[in-house]
Amino acid sequence: MNVRATFDSAGVAGQINFGIGQPSPDLMPVDLFRSLSEQFIAGADPLDFNYGASQGDRRFLESLAAFLTRAYGHPAAPDSLFVTGGNSQAIELVCERFTKPGDTVFVEEPSYFLAFQIFLDRGLNIVSIPLDEQGMRMDALEDALRHHQPALVYTIPSFNNPSGVTLSGPRRERLVDLSRAHDFVIAADEVYQLLVYEGDVPPALGTMIDRGNIVSMGTFSKILAPGLRLGWIQAGPGHIKRLLESGWVNSGGSINHNSSHLARHAMDSGLQDQHIEFAVSRYRERVDVMQEELERAFRPLARWTRPRGGYFFWLELENGIDTVALRGEAIAAGTGFQPGPVFSGSGRFGHCLRLSFAHYTAAQIREGMHRLSGVLRNHA
Amino acid sequence: MNVRATFDSAGVAGQINFGIGQPSPDLMPVDLFRSLSEQFIAGADPLDFNYGASQGDRRFLESLAAFLTRAYGHPAAPDSLFVTGGNSQAIELVCERFTKPGDTVFVEEPSYFLAFQIFLDRGLNIVSIPLDEQGMRMDALEDALRHHQPALVYTIPSFNNPSGVTLSGPRRERLVDLSRAHDFVIAADEVYQLLVYEGDVPPALGTMIDRGNIVSMGTFSKILAPGLRLGWIQAGPGHIKRLLESGWVNSGGSINHNSSHLARHAMDSGLQDQHIEFAVSRYRERVDVMQEELERAFRPLARWTRPRGGYFFWLELENGIDTVALRGEAIAAGTGFQPGPVFSGSGRFGHCLRLSFAHYTAAQIREGMHRLSGVLRNHA
Repeated sequence: MNVRATFDSAGVAGQINFGIGQPSPDLMPVDLFRSLSEQFIAGADPLDFNYGASQGDRRFLESLAAFLTRAYGHPAAPDSLFVTGGNSQAIELVCERFTKPGDTVFVEEPSYFLAFQIFLDRGLNIVSIPLDEQGMRMDALEDALRHHQPALVYTIPSFNNPSGVTLSGPRRERLVDLSRAHDFVIAADEVYQLLVYEGDVPPALGTMIDRGNIVSMGTFSKILAPGLRLGWIQAGPGHIKRLLESGWVNSGGSINHNSSHLARHAMDSGLQDQHIEFAVSRYRERVDVMQEELERAFRPLARWTRPRGGYFFWLELENGIDTVALRGEAIAAGTGFQPGPVFSGSGRFGHCLRLSFAHYTAAQIREGMHRLSGVLRNHA
Repeated sequence: MNVRATFDSAGVAGQINFGIGQPSPDLMPVDLFRSLSEQFIAGADPLDFNYGASQGDRRFLESLAAFLTRAYGHPAAPDSLFVTGGNSQAIELVCERFTKPGDTVFVEEPSYFLAFQIFLDRGLNIVSIPLDEQGMRMDALEDALRHHQPALVYTIPSFNNPSGVTLSGPRRERLVDLSRAHDFVIAADEVYQLLVYEGDVPPALGTMIDRGNIVSMGTFSKILAPGLRLGWIQAGPGHIKRLLESGWVNSGGSINHNSSHLARHAMDSGLQDQHIEFAVSRYRERVDVMQEELERAFRPLARWTRPRGGYFFWLELENGIDTVALRGEAIAAGTGFQPGPVFSGSGRFGHCLRLSFAHYTAAQIREGMHRLSGVLRNHA
């Protein structure tokens, strides 16, 4: 990490910063949460405000199992699920339970920039495995396995952050086989699995927990609301048992009991399914708009692949443009992005950048892309 | 730890298990949470459902500062506060930010049993410092400081769990001075500070953050509802900065944005103050009842001090009774407690036990104490 990566939260007024990988306000309608709160409170019991079970409230786990069975198209059992406080905290918890300081974690190159610091905080050595258009390269993985014994392999299999690339079905099978053969845990960050705008996506690694060492992480942040700070881990019985042995989890009960009630009502009432449909339709429209704007003003300076899901476009720039420097110019022009090097374990991608289309409406995206193309034209 | 300590969650129907250190259902009235939800939703903005700031929503920090200024009787600044996911997670986060594996943590003897596993998970060496009726013994602490350089000193200064003992004012001053002289962080678990039933309590260590290396942890679990999974850390600017550098905190934003809105409305509307008054009046009544029952049926087999705050009676039994074995008999008789050795870093307190009066009504406490005295009489 050459660049100190920070969380780009709510931006400056008027700025259209495509560096922000968060949903837009119109995708978190207050009416939806009013309805969920009312449903919950109408049937609430005082014990719903107590600690709750460490694995998660039983009703929540059952609703989640039914939801995932439907959404992933594969039976999910309540006992294979564990409540989390969102995906960042889940990654931290997986590191806590399945690594020790000095262990090695394999990450995709490029990968989610803010995960790196979680691994470094845990004293892990990061080894990068390159991607191609089919996701993590299995030849590179097998080569790395000859030199390292990783405790974890961290992957964002569907619509990788930042590249948008999806791990192919055959490679998923291979990765799962290798997790058994080499005794590592696959920490699968599957937060974009249900945000599909075009074509099909291979089965979530969460559907393959019987066949390998898989800890699949999902979150309501990307399909309902980040503020709930609620997600889940799907894993086999041995891995669930390890999670439950965590000292702070054992002490505190359910990691987010209150939010789990709201999410349960969302899943039970059908509002969760409706909201995904709504969000997907909006995101699909935003992909169209960003693609149009890129086609209109970014060729031949940039190359990219239109994303089929997730949150991001990943651009490779020509002319040796340094995207870390370019970011300053973009901010000055009232826009922004994440420069490529933050996503690299080894300082690569200096000519790349990530654009999120999630945080703004279609009209804002047109305006922001107009600003950004102006910045880029100065380098043509 | 001779005894594998586990979280005693909601008990068997009909059981009155004084091992459960949780509020009773009547102290988590659904109407209170209906009111908070309605207040929040009526003025909610879509961004209230987004990630929120890592230190905590600004409005929440300001409300909390005003609340603590009032409740602790000492000015608290919003910038000195940091949102947490409850106290167990706060302890874990403090270990993450202020220790490394192999470091030493001093704990009180006895101390909160479920904290030990958090320290062990972090690879810390636990050194126990005995208590007397004035709290942690400063002579023993200073002696231990001649042999160890602790990274943390973990204390429950007010109404220690399990002993009910409170660290005296002069010892608080001494402890704070020592934290500077010996460069350790005081991890102050101040969750019972506002549950005072008799007399006064010395100032919270949270009011002394300008004078020593103090990280004070508080929680809404004990004053509002555990299910919110919401607490706070109060600390100086250097310590707050260290917390914000956590990889998973930086990635995830506010640790519990949604719950922080509910707590903010509780503090702003006066419902938080009212609820503490209500809870304190109930707990005070329960102390009376448990004290009466102990006086009636537990002398001369047991010795104890009537608690002036917190959640617990701590009993020392005569006749060499082994409380670990006794617990099985108690469970068979439809009651329960926590045996002394779980609270020891060195297997002590085999003749002690902890009774919580928080989880049951006065009538249930009478019935449970009747059952427990029957068990004890078999050993007279």
